[in-house]
Amino acid sequence: MNGKLRTAIVGSTGYGGVELIRLLLQHPKAEITSVISSSNAGALYAEGYPHLSEIVTDRLEAIDVAAMKSKADVVFLATPHGVSTELSPKLIDAGLKVIDVSGDLRLKQGDVYETWYKHKPADPAYLDRAVYGLCEVFGEDVRGADLIANPGCFPTATSLGLVPLLAEGWIDPSTIISDAKTGVSGAGRGLGLAYHYSEINESTLAYKVNRHQHTPEIEQTLSRVAGQEVTMTFTTHLLPMTRGILVTSYAKLTQARTDEEVVNLFRSYYEGRKFVRIRPVGKYPATKEVSGSNYCDIGVSVDARTGRVTVISVIDNLMKGAAGQAVQNLNLMMGWDESTGLDFTPVYP
Amino acid sequence: MNGKLRTAIVGSTGYGGVELIRLLLQHPKAEITSVISSSNAGALYAEGYPHLSEIVTDRLEAIDVAAMKSKADVVFLATPHGVSTELSPKLIDAGLKVIDVSGDLRLKQGDVYETWYKHKPADPAYLDRAVYGLCEVFGEDVRGADLIANPGCFPTATSLGLVPLLAEGWIDPSTIISDAKTGVSGAGRGLGLAYHYSEINESTLAYKVNRHQHTPEIEQTLSRVAGQEVTMTFTTHLLPMTRGILVTSYAKLTQARTDEEVVNLFRSYYEGRKFVRIRPVGKYPATKEVSGSNYCDIGVSVDARTGRVTVISVIDNLMKGAAGQAVQNLNLMMGWDESTGLDFTPVYP
Amino acid sequence: MNGKLRTAIVGSTGYGGVELIRLLLQHPKAEITSVISSSNAGALYAEGYPHLSEIVTDRLEAIDVAAMKSKADVVFLATPHGVSTELSPKLIDAGLKVIDVSGDLRLKQGDVYETWYKHKPADPAYLDRAVYGLCEVFGEDVRGADLIANPGCFPTATSLGLVPLLAEGWIDPSTIISDAKTGVSGAGRGLGLAYHYSEINESTLAYKVNRHQHTPEIEQTLSRVAGQEVTMTFTTHLLPMTRGILVTSYAKLTQARTDEEVVNLFRSYYEGRKFVRIRPVGKYPATKEVSGSNYCDIGVSVDARTGRVTVISVIDNLMKGAAGQAVQNLNLMMGWDESTGLDFTPVYP
Amino acid sequence: MNGKLRTAIVGSTGYGGVELIRLLLQHPKAEITSVISSSNAGALYAEGYPHLSEIVTDRLEAIDVAAMKSKADVVFLATPHGVSTELSPKLIDAGLKVIDVSGDLRLKQGDVYETWYKHKPADPAYLDRAVYGLCEVFGEDVRGADLIANPGCFPTATSLGLVPLLAEGWIDPSTIISDAKTGVSGAGRGLGLAYHYSEINESTLAYKVNRHQHTPEIEQTLSRVAGQEVTMTFTTHLLPMTRGILVTSYAKLTQARTDEEVVNLFRSYYEGRKFVRIRPVGKYPATKEVSGSNYCDIGVSVDARTGRVTVISVIDNLMKGAAGQAVQNLNLMMGWDESTGLDFTPVYP
Repeated sequence: MNGKLRTAIVGSTGYGGVELIRLLLQHPKAEITSVISSSNAGALYAEGYPHLSEIVTDRLEAIDVAAMKSKADVVFLATPHGVSTELSPKLIDAGLKVIDVSGDLRLKQGDVYETWYKHKPADPAYLDRAVYGLCEVFGEDVRGADLIANPGCFPTATSLGLVPLLAEGWIDPSTIISDAKTGVSGAGRGLGLAYHYSEINESTLAYKVNRHQHTPEIEQTLSRVAGQEVTMTFTTHLLPMTRGILVTSYAKLTQARTDEEVVNLFRSYYEGRKFVRIRPVGKYPATKEVSGSNYCDIGVSVDARTGRVTVISVIDNLMKGAAGQAVQNLNLMMGWDESTGLDFTPVYP
Repeated sequence: MNGKLRTAIVGSTGYGGVELIRLLLQHPKAEITSVISSSNAGALYAEGYPHLSEIVTDRLEAIDVAAMKSKADVVFLATPHGVSTELSPKLIDAGLKVIDVSGDLRLKQGDVYETWYKHKPADPAYLDRAVYGLCEVFGEDVRGADLIANPGCFPTATSLGLVPLLAEGWIDPSTIISDAKTGVSGAGRGLGLAYHYSEINESTLAYKVNRHQHTPEIEQTLSRVAGQEVTMTFTTHLLPMTRGILVTSYAKLTQARTDEEVVNLFRSYYEGRKFVRIRPVGKYPATKEVSGSNYCDIGVSVDARTGRVTVISVIDNLMKGAAGQAVQNLNLMMGWDESTGLDFTPVYP
Repeated sequence: MNGKLRTAIVGSTGYGGVELIRLLLQHPKAEITSVISSSNAGALYAEGYPHLSEIVTDRLEAIDVAAMKSKADVVFLATPHGVSTELSPKLIDAGLKVIDVSGDLRLKQGDVYETWYKHKPADPAYLDRAVYGLCEVFGEDVRGADLIANPGCFPTATSLGLVPLLAEGWIDPSTIISDAKTGVSGAGRGLGLAYHYSEINESTLAYKVNRHQHTPEIEQTLSRVAGQEVTMTFTTHLLPMTRGILVTSYAKLTQARTDEEVVNLFRSYYEGRKFVRIRPVGKYPATKEVSGSNYCDIGVSVDARTGRVTVISVIDNLMKGAAGQAVQNLNLMMGWDESTGLDFTPVYP
Repeated sequence: MNGKLRTAIVGSTGYGGVELIRLLLQHPKAEITSVISSSNAGALYAEGYPHLSEIVTDRLEAIDVAAMKSKADVVFLATPHGVSTELSPKLIDAGLKVIDVSGDLRLKQGDVYETWYKHKPADPAYLDRAVYGLCEVFGEDVRGADLIANPGCFPTATSLGLVPLLAEGWIDPSTIISDAKTGVSGAGRGLGLAYHYSEINESTLAYKVNRHQHTPEIEQTLSRVAGQEVTMTFTTHLLPMTRGILVTSYAKLTQARTDEEVVNLFRSYYEGRKFVRIRPVGKYPATKEVSGSNYCDIGVSVDARTGRVTVISVIDNLMKGAAGQAVQNLNLMMGWDESTGLDFTPVYP
C-alpha cells in the first residue's frame, strides 16, 4: 500500500479499457489493483495485448462486487451497453465510487435511452444520481460525486464545439447540424465486416444515419445549456484511420458576427481550461494534432454569405472521448488538478 | 490510322491526365495520339509513371496548337487553373474540339471565377460557348458541342445528390449544407506538406472552410435546376485515403416525405442513366464501392424529427469526378453510347 | 446463348471470387453463368457486394455438380482448403474443365500437402492430372489441360523472381531466402483479430514464420526448374495495405555478375511474355505499379561486396496472384491469346 | 532555474527534433531551454507544429554556439547529414556535451563514411571521441562520455536482433541477411514524391537496394561484437505507415539449436535491460506493439529444414530508433536510471 487511490477496471480488454490502463499506469496518485473482464477471467492480461508484456503482469479477474470492494476505491466501467445498468447500482451500494465510460447512465430519461439504445434503462434513482462528466462544461458537478456518467466520444467533441455559442445565444438552436467523422477504434475490438481491414481501408461511409444513439446525449447537453429543447441533425462517418474524431458543426448565427468575435467567445468560455485549445482565425485543427492526448482543439469560421458559423472540433476518441476524460473526471471527483497524470503531449506525426 | 478518334491530352502527367490515359487506352472508338506536358517535353512518359512501362512508350510533347491540330481531333485539358483560359480559345479557333477538365470554363460569370479562383477569367465568348458537362443533368447540351467544361469532383458528387430534390421542389434551397470528404489524390501530384504521407496518414482535417472554389460551381448548377438563386454552405475535408469522395448533404424538406418517397424520386430522376445507382432505404454507399469506376452511388435518409433529408453521394474523384466523366462527355459529344469504354467494374476490395 | 464459353465460380463470395467476377464480366470470350457459394445460396449476390449493384443481378447457387454440368463449360474454384480436394474430381468426372484457385491440387505429393496444410490430400490420380499453371514458366503444359492448379499468390511472385536465375544456374540453390510482404486482402474476407482494422493499420508483423504452406509449393517449382531438390527459407509479413505482394529474394551468385547481365537474363527469359516486366538497372517496382492488373514487375541488384543477388518482384495478389492468373490459365487452356480480357492498365494512384 | 539539466535541440523542426521535445517535456530531470533551427529562426515553434500550441511557446533560434553555451548543458543534434560534422567539434570545444542523432559521427572510419554518405567525414579526433550509444550493447561506454553518436534507426533494430547470436558464436557471420521495413516518418518532414501520400499509400517498395548508408554502421557493430570483420546484405523497404521499423534477419546457425535455446539466449543477454523484450517461442512482435515507446521487441524462429535462424525485431523508429534512445543515452551519460522520463507505455491501438 503506497497511499495511492486504488482503481479497478471492468471491461479492461476493450480499447477503452486498455487506454485506461495506459493512463493509470502513469498516474501519480492512482494505481490499478484489478483488471476485470466478464470473459477470459484467469488469463494473463498481456497475452491478449502483447504491447503490455512485462508492464502489466496481472491476470484478468471475473466481475465480483465483493472483491472489488476489498481491492478498490474507484471502479471504471468500460463495458458494452447494458452492463453498467445492472452493475453500477451494486457498486454504489457497496460504497464504491464509479466512473461509467459506457452509455448506460448518460441519458437522464430512461425512455429516451430505451428508444435509441434498444436496451432496458437503469433504475431512475441511479440515473438521477449519475453526474454527466463533460468536464469543461459541467465540471463543477463532478467534485464530490460518486457516480459519473462519462460522456460519449461524439458528444464530447460535438458539445464542446457548440456549447459556447448556445450559452451566449449566438446561434439558432433549431438550425444545428453536426457531421462527425471517426476513426475505426471507436467501434471497439469486436470483429465486424465493416471493420475488416480490406473493407474499410481506402474507403469511407456514413452509418446509423439519423439513428446514432449519441444524438439524444448531445441534445440533452445542448438543451441544458440553451435552456430550451434542442433537436439537431447528427451524422456519423467511418474513416480509414484508427484514432481520432473530427466534428463539423453548422448553425445559423442569430446576428452577424466576425471570425474574431467567435474565436474570442470560445477563448473566453474555455479560459483556464487546459484541455480545450482554440485555433486562431483561419486555422483548423487536424485529428493528428491531438492524437494520444486529452486535448479538444477547435477552429471556427463565419460565412457572411449564408449567415452560418462552422465549427471544427477534434479529439482523440480513446482519450478525451473515453479514457482521458474518465481520468479527468477521476481527478475532478477527487479534488485533484484536472490534468493530473494527463500531461500527454500529442504523439506527432 | 485505324479510324479511331484521335485525342491529345494536355497536362498528361498529373493524376487526372494519367487516369485519362488509363481510360482512353481501353476505349474502342478513341486513341491517344499525343501526351503533352508544359514541363518535361521530350521525356519518356513512362519514366515518371513506371506502371505504364511497355504500355505507353510515347515521349511527352510540348504544348503546340499546330501540332495538336495535325495529330488530334479532340483535346483534353487536365491542366492547372489558368492554362485553359488561354489555351482553349486557341484550340477552338484551330477547329479542334476541347474537353476542359480544369475549372477555368465552368463558371459562366467571369467575376465569380475571379473572386474564388484569384485568376483572370477566360474570354466571355468562350465561357458562353462552353457547355457544362454534368452528364446526367445537362447531357443533352453536350451532344454536338465542341467545348466542354467538365465538372469538378466535388460539384459532381454534390450536385447529383441534390438535383432531383431541387428539381421537384422537395427541399428549401436556402437550407442546403454539403459536407464533403475527399481522398488525397484530389490534390494532385504536386508536393505539399498537407499531402506528405506522415502528416495526413492517421489524420483528417477541414480545409478552405467557406472558401472552396467549387462552391460557386455547385451553386450555379443548383440555381439553374431550382430556377432561383441558391446560396449554400460547402465544406471540404481531407481523408487518409487516395481515391474517393463522399458528400453528405443536408436540407429541410418542404413537406413531410418518407424514405421510400425520396428513394423513388431519385430512381425516377436517374432512370436509364447507368452511372448513377440509388441504394435502397436504409443503405448508404461507401467510396470503395465505386473505386476505379465511373459510378456515382447515392443513399438517402429522411429524419422526421428535424424535417431534414440527408443525402450521401460517393464517386471516385479521378473517374466520375474527372477523367471518367470527361470520357463520358466525349461519348455524348460524339453521339456514342455514354458508357462506351467506361464499363469498369469497381475494383473491390 | 451467345457463343461465349460458360463459366461457373464456386466460392464466389470471397475476394478471389469477386475478382474473378470483375474479370470475367469484361472477358470477350467467356461469360459467367453461375455464382456459387456453399453458404448463402439463394441470396442476391450484390447484397453482400453492393459495388456490383445493377451489374451482377444473379442469386447465389448451392454447390451442385449436375447443375454446373448443365450450365457451364469451365468451373473456377475459389474455395477454402479442402473443398477442391473433394469437388474437383467430381467436376472432372462430369466432363467439366476445372481451374482450381485454392491450394488443394498444387503439391504433387500428398504427404507434403498434409504436412503443411493439415488437411487430407486429394486423390493422387487427380494430383497427377492437375497442371500447375505458372503461366510464364509452365504455360505449355496448360494448353489443352482440363484441370489446372492455379499457383498461390506468394509462389507466383517468388517463383517468377527466381526461375530465370535457377534455370541458368546463376545462383546457388542452397542459399535462397525469400522475404515476402503482403496486403491484407490475401487473408480473405473472413474475420480475424489480425485483420481487424485498428490492429493492423499503422502496423506490420511477420506470421507463420518458417511454417507458411506456400513454402513447399515454391520449392516444388524451384526444384523442377533447377533439376535438383531445393530447400529455401520463406517468411511472410502482413502490411497495412489492401492489395499487393512484394517479395525480396536473396541468393548467392555462382559467379560474379553485373546488374546489366542479370537484367538481361530476366529480359531474355521472359521475352514475349506480356505480363512480366523487368525494370532497368537501379530501378525497383512498387506494388502500386501493378495494382488492379495482371503484371508481375521485377527489379534486380547485384551486391559485389557479398556476392549475392537481390530480386524484387511485385504483383497484385488478387490478380496475378489469384484471379488474373486464373483467367490467363483459362486463355491458355482454350488456346486463346493469354492476355484476352486481361488488358487492365494498373490503377494508379 | 529549477535545478534541471538544460538541453538545447538543434534541428528541432524535423520529426526527430519534435519527438525529442515530446520526451524532454516530460523528463523529470531535464528541461528544454532552446529550440534551434538553421532555417526559420524567429518563428514561433508551434506555428509549424500546431499540436504543440500552448505547450511550446518558444521561438526558434538560429545556430549560435555561444548562445548554446550560455543556455544549455547538453545539446541534441537532430540535423541532416553534414551539420554535426562541423558543429559537434565546436560544441565540444565550448565545453558542452553533445548527443548527435544524425549519422555523422557513427562510423569510426572517415573513408567509409565518405563512401556511403557522399559527404566529407568529421575530424578523426572527434570520430574517435564519439561513443556509439547502442545502449543495451555498449551502454557502459556512455557513462561519463561527452560526445555520443546516437545509433541509426535501422542499425538499432537490426543490431539488437543479431548481437546475442554473434556474441555467442551461434551464427555464421558470413551468412547474415537483414530485410528491413520502415514507416514513412523515417524519411523526415522534407517533401519528396516517394513520400507523397497518393504515391506511397496502398503501396510498398524497396529503395537504396545494396546502397543504404546504414549498412556499414550495422557491420561496424556486428564486427565489434563478433571480433571479426562482418559483411552483410541489408535491404530497406518503405511501408504505408507513419511509424515503426520491423527487421527480419536471417543467418545460418553454426550448430543445431531449438527455438527455446535461442529465446533463452536472448533473454539471458538482455536480462535487466528494460527496453528489450523477448517474445516467447512461436510469437512475433508487431510494430504497433512498441509504437510511441522506447521498446525493442524481438521474436525468433529456428528452421531445422534449412539450419537458419530468423529474428524479427521491431522498434518505433522515432523513439528507440532516434529520440527515445537519445534520451536513454542522456540518462546513461548523466548516471541516471536509463528509463528516466522514458516510461511511455506503447500507444495501442
